[in-house]
Amino acid sequence: MNQDYIIPNEWSVIEEGFDKERVKSSESLFSIGNGAMGQRANFEEDYSGATFQGSYIAGVYYPDKTRVGWWKNGYPEYFAKVLNAPNWIGIHVKINEEVFDLNTCKKVENFKRELNMKEGWLSRTFTAILSNGIELEVSSKRFLSLELDEVGAIEYKVTPLNSGATITFSPYLDAGITNEDSNWDDKFWNILNVTSEGDQAFIESHTMKTNFHTCTFMESRVFVDGKMLDVTKEEEKSDSKIAFTYKVDVQQNQTATLHKFAGYTVDRNHQKEALVSAAKTALDKALNIGFDDLLALQIQAWKQIWDMSDITISGDVKAQQGIRFNIFQLNQTYLGTDARLNIGPKGFTGEKYGGSTYWDTEAYCLPFYMATKDQKVARNLLEYRYHHLDRAIENAEKLGFTNGAALYPMVTMNGEECHNEWEITFEEIHRNAAIAFAMYNYERYTSDASYVPEKGLEVLIGIARFWHQRATFSTAKNKYVILGVTGPNEYENNVNNNWYTNYAAKWCIDYALEAIAKVESDHISDYIRIKEKVKFDAEELASWKKVADHMFFPYSEEHQVFLQQDGFLDKELITVADLDKAQRPINQKWSWDRILRSPYIKQADTLQGFYFFEDQFSQEELERHFDFYEPFTVHESSLSPCVHSIQAAKLGRMEQAYTFYLRTSRLDLDDYNKEVEEGLHITSMAGTWMSIVEGFGGMRVKNDTLSFTPQIPEQWEAYSFKVNFRGQILKISVCKDDTKFELENGSALEILVNDKLIKISPNNLITV
Amino acid sequence: MNQDYIIPNEWSVIEEGFDKERVKSSESLFSIGNGAMGQRANFEEDYSGATFQGSYIAGVYYPDKTRVGWWKNGYPEYFAKVLNAPNWIGIHVKINEEVFDLNTCKKVENFKRELNMKEGWLSRTFTAILSNGIELEVSSKRFLSLELDEVGAIEYKVTPLNSGATITFSPYLDAGITNEDSNWDDKFWNILNVTSEGDQAFIESHTMKTNFHTCTFMESRVFVDGKMLDVTKEEEKSDSKIAFTYKVDVQQNQTATLHKFAGYTVDRNHQKEALVSAAKTALDKALNIGFDDLLALQIQAWKQIWDMSDITISGDVKAQQGIRFNIFQLNQTYLGTDARLNIGPKGFTGEKYGGSTYWDTEAYCLPFYMATKDQKVARNLLEYRYHHLDRAIENAEKLGFTNGAALYPMVTMNGEECHNEWEITFEEIHRNAAIAFAMYNYERYTSDASYVPEKGLEVLIGIARFWHQRATFSTAKNKYVILGVTGPNEYENNVNNNWYTNYAAKWCIDYALEAIAKVESDHISDYIRIKEKVKFDAEELASWKKVADHMFFPYSEEHQVFLQQDGFLDKELITVADLDKAQRPINQKWSWDRILRSPYIKQADTLQGFYFFEDQFSQEELERHFDFYEPFTVHESSLSPCVHSIQAAKLGRMEQAYTFYLRTSRLDLDDYNKEVEEGLHITSMAGTWMSIVEGFGGMRVKNDTLSFTPQIPEQWEAYSFKVNFRGQILKISVCKDDTKFELENGSALEILVNDKLIKISPNNLITV
Repeated sequence: MNQDYIIPNEWSVIEEGFDKERVKSSESLFSIGNGAMGQRANFEEDYSGATFQGSYIAGVYYPDKTRVGWWKNGYPEYFAKVLNAPNWIGIHVKINEEVFDLNTCKKVENFKRELNMKEGWLSRTFTAILSNGIELEVSSKRFLSLELDEVGAIEYKVTPLNSGATITFSPYLDAGITNEDSNWDDKFWNILNVTSEGDQAFIESHTMKTNFHTCTFMESRVFVDGKMLDVTKEEEKSDSKIAFTYKVDVQQNQTATLHKFAGYTVDRNHQKEALVSAAKTALDKALNIGFDDLLALQIQAWKQIWDMSDITISGDVKAQQGIRFNIFQLNQTYLGTDARLNIGPKGFTGEKYGGSTYWDTEAYCLPFYMATKDQKVARNLLEYRYHHLDRAIENAEKLGFTNGAALYPMVTMNGEECHNEWEITFEEIHRNAAIAFAMYNYERYTSDASYVPEKGLEVLIGIARFWHQRATFSTAKNKYVILGVTGPNEYENNVNNNWYTNYAAKWCIDYALEAIAKVESDHISDYIRIKEKVKFDAEELASWKKVADHMFFPYSEEHQVFLQQDGFLDKELITVADLDKAQRPINQKWSWDRILRSPYIKQADTLQGFYFFEDQFSQEELERHFDFYEPFTVHESSLSPCVHSIQAAKLGRMEQAYTFYLRTSRLDLDDYNKEVEEGLHITSMAGTWMSIVEGFGGMRVKNDTLSFTPQIPEQWEAYSFKVNFRGQILKISVCKDDTKFELENGSALEILVNDKLIKISPNNLITV
Repeated sequence: MNQDYIIPNEWSVIEEGFDKERVKSSESLFSIGNGAMGQRANFEEDYSGATFQGSYIAGVYYPDKTRVGWWKNGYPEYFAKVLNAPNWIGIHVKINEEVFDLNTCKKVENFKRELNMKEGWLSRTFTAILSNGIELEVSSKRFLSLELDEVGAIEYKVTPLNSGATITFSPYLDAGITNEDSNWDDKFWNILNVTSEGDQAFIESHTMKTNFHTCTFMESRVFVDGKMLDVTKEEEKSDSKIAFTYKVDVQQNQTATLHKFAGYTVDRNHQKEALVSAAKTALDKALNIGFDDLLALQIQAWKQIWDMSDITISGDVKAQQGIRFNIFQLNQTYLGTDARLNIGPKGFTGEKYGGSTYWDTEAYCLPFYMATKDQKVARNLLEYRYHHLDRAIENAEKLGFTNGAALYPMVTMNGEECHNEWEITFEEIHRNAAIAFAMYNYERYTSDASYVPEKGLEVLIGIARFWHQRATFSTAKNKYVILGVTGPNEYENNVNNNWYTNYAAKWCIDYALEAIAKVESDHISDYIRIKEKVKFDAEELASWKKVADHMFFPYSEEHQVFLQQDGFLDKELITVADLDKAQRPINQKWSWDRILRSPYIKQADTLQGFYFFEDQFSQEELERHFDFYEPFTVHESSLSPCVHSIQAAKLGRMEQAYTFYLRTSRLDLDDYNKEVEEGLHITSMAGTWMSIVEGFGGMRVKNDTLSFTPQIPEQWEAYSFKVNFRGQILKISVCKDDTKFELENGSALEILVNDKLIKISPNNLITV
């Protein structure tokens, strides 16, 4: 743990006291989003201290140039940057002509920042004494509406406590922004129009290169002691910014309030010529509803989300806060309503990683969305890849593959590869397997057998073709080998026969062959259509099978484990426990070559295979591999602890499982990786959910039946979660002595609890 | 061969006929340099067609930012760019107010471009008809003075052939230049002052970040029919450019001539405040000498170079032209007079590769300079690394090495690493061995035993310490292994136990131990001084020896060869001969991952070891390894064919040796790699020289004795070369029937010819 200032609270993230050193960290932690847009928790008023400004719009990115070093053939032309978007939260505030700035105030007291996760809003309250001696009480509340997802609302209140004062509010829009990570302070936006109409202001702009058109808009209202004023505004306009200035004279203890409604309309949802009029419509709707009622709608919308996805933990308020923070942030990032969007690793909380879609989506996020949303959401996530199939085939062609082989990109915004390191882009090909596995996982969980014949099979065939071509025959080994890959453990590059990759490749081919046979027998018209379209024949399938049947798996007879890759045992096998603590985290202390030749594992690699394909291995095998590999695992990926937590729980090692769980659940709140300033680890938050549901709860689907093996960490009194299983909502409450199952709707359901079949009827609490 | 327009000529590179498509290629081929500066053969007058403008100053570079993708710890902060420097060759020419531009002329005839290698100048002559109907005869001649190495001189002559005309010459200096390879059209120069004084103009500027200060200067004279005119000039000045305009009215067939003297003074040689006055001094000297006499001095200086370094070939004019082109370009790039400079892979002919110093210097260039210059030059090249030892130790520290271990950079300008790809920078560590080997090679050739005790030993110790720490013990193999390297074959990355690297590492340690013992016995005061300074003891040396004595060498019993690296035999071993020609060059046709998992070899790797350490292996072993590896070698590095040519010659396969030779000798003239537009392959040119001297001539030093095994390609009648061996100049002339040896100076010398001892006396031709 590297920080400890977040006040434990079951439903809110709370910071008390103003500390300039924590501003950037809190800007990440208190980020808000509504799936369509999001922001870091930057202050509305001016702040001259250290800050990392960030507003982000879903699906809006910039293709940064990638030419550096010696060009390698097949490189993508760009690296997608998450783009800082025009700022609409800003309000310049002056008190008697002094700019109000927390960095320059003489005193700031009773500072409290709250991210209310239950209701979906962010607030600040404090008192401050300005240089001019005026003491103020200030409060602000901000939310991004789930009801109107183009709109955010801010209530900003100022009360002078020791005299009357002239309060000047200048809400503004500013499109003159840059990215923190730009190499050369480049601008990424072209600003087309800065206009106003009555109380409404608009900035139309589009991103360079990608040409995403947006309109950033605002409209404000001013109140004194709750009564709306008809103040004359002054307008100030430049090429990139527009501000409306409202001056209000208030007496001591009178409160001046600004309501600012603002947001973005984007050309993903509107004609680009209609963005301003769409903005007007959005503003009119929001103003019509008003701040208070829009907030009431927000609370209602979050209630619905929590009703389905909440996990309760009794007896450990920090754990409770941690898990809710994860669930909240996942829902802020992706709601599943737009199949064109996906789940960026940093969500709307920072720029790092660029791109929006990683294998994280399939490997870590899908189970969460599958169990806590309508199954349409999980299907949307699968379809996202289906829509990108042509691009995946193009991507494989760029790398020399033929005949419709598909290689999905490592990082993408639109289906194209948009990352530019060969060891990742060209070699971390196991991502292809996660995409196939997600289909299997989806059908296993939902029993929706329509996706594969309708859409999935084409993807599976493209993926199988890729693996078939990617494997080569080794005369020396008399087996098919897969040379030159990077496995999930990114602390190895360009290794041969990464066991996980080889195993997953074989699995993909086997699954594709099964799926083809099943579609042929159960969905003949789909079979004919697909066969016509992608043209395969028995000979091709036989050649796939040959590769799958003769795949090489590196194995150590001495240790009785599969080897992470060829040559793993040549390393200096010093466990993490024996590694000098001062050397860690190795990704900050060691140069890349040293990391590569070390045995240290960034995140589950061989064990990832034991997670995905656990049915194929015995408990003893799991234990042996866990005991061999975990001691070399440094867990320096946010995606690492959750898989290990689930496996430790499966092995009955609840202490260890809980330790891993803690690390994932409060990773950002306690800033374990010393990087929370850069933004949050959104996709790994789903792993936290998995740690409880699949780890402690032991949830699986076995032969079409939901199954649990509930355990509880000693530190907890009880915990509960709900899952949507095939349209039925099941609530599971685990305490030290028993587990309760409650079905909210539908018909009776048979489940397995510790491998015993139990029948549950709706609204009938069953205790086991 | 991809082009064939260079007219064969023994002493000149000649292009006839004007072809816009060839301009960029010719700009590379006709480049000129004098060790201190150099330029592509850009036209002096305006040219609106496709061109690649380049002027370069030795030792002047720019640190480009390298942040892209995911940052890896230990990365260098910059990638050194070869910097396009202010243009001083430019002359705007107008004929009756029409801008003279070969791209817009109605007709260009009798175009001839000549790079006279014997005399060191570049010329163009042609006639042209302008849009305004005026027909001109134009000739220009340009050289970079060896006598005054800050100065270049241009003679530019215009003769209207069909009427009188007003000729306007506007010689200019332009510092408003950019690099071709800049990502964002960035400027890399700050311009401080644009000034003039009388007929002299100056631009003072400095590079951003690196702060290299330069003054670019010029002064011109105008003549009509050879008679100097006192024309009033107009001056035009902007922030980045200054031009003097001279108008001359000439009659039909009268010739207007401009002599422009220009160049750079740099703060490596002068106080930065004194750059303008140094420029004045340089100009005054040059003007005093005058164009014709300065040219005469140029011819004289080149005569001296050729006297020592020429290779003659009879019966094959293209081969003759090729070898002279290589020798000429090497001498244009590096003359060995300034130990702070080194030999950039593209010399002064293009931007690619950045940086100036690669292992090319030690591995390929040293033998050429050792044999064709005073031995001080070779020692300067060794000392260059000695001066960088502290930086090499720092570089190793950045990668986690301790105790004075030194890792020399892969690419450098000032001793710091300035390349930014981990697979090269962090892993292509074999460069360290080339630096040690160069010392061995130098002492073997020159018998100068003073370098190691005076300077070299510290370097050897730093290098041995590096290898000792870099090797790790493999319990599985019960040997020391070197994991995660890139060998000379850069078509493999991050491999384990690259045989060449392991062998070279062992060799370095053994050599360092020997050197320590020798210095202890022969130079005790040096020994004490060095031991005091770098602090080693018997225990440390013993631990080095343990690593050297137990180094692992991958070996195939089946093929009876050392393996290029662990796992090499798992590849699909299809020879280059069986590879579809359409797939080549693979570095243009294949993506990086495909190259990496292929068996194809970019340049000698295992065979590089057999080249450096040939004494350690039998002829049979060489043959077996050559026959195993060469068939997988694509020779896509310019450094590849020469080593193979030498080895083929050693194996008595003269046809094959000659084929390799051809590929290296006319690599650029015939543009084998389809990239000559980007510049020339300077460092590999030394390999061409080696192919003849070490390959065909079979020159070696055996037990302190110079040895030859002369052979001659069938296609040649005769060839000859000279070598400076320990201060004596020996000329070797090989023809079909015999070989003649002629000693130019000194005392008698015993040499080995085909392993027979022969005594040669000065000025006494010996025929064998």
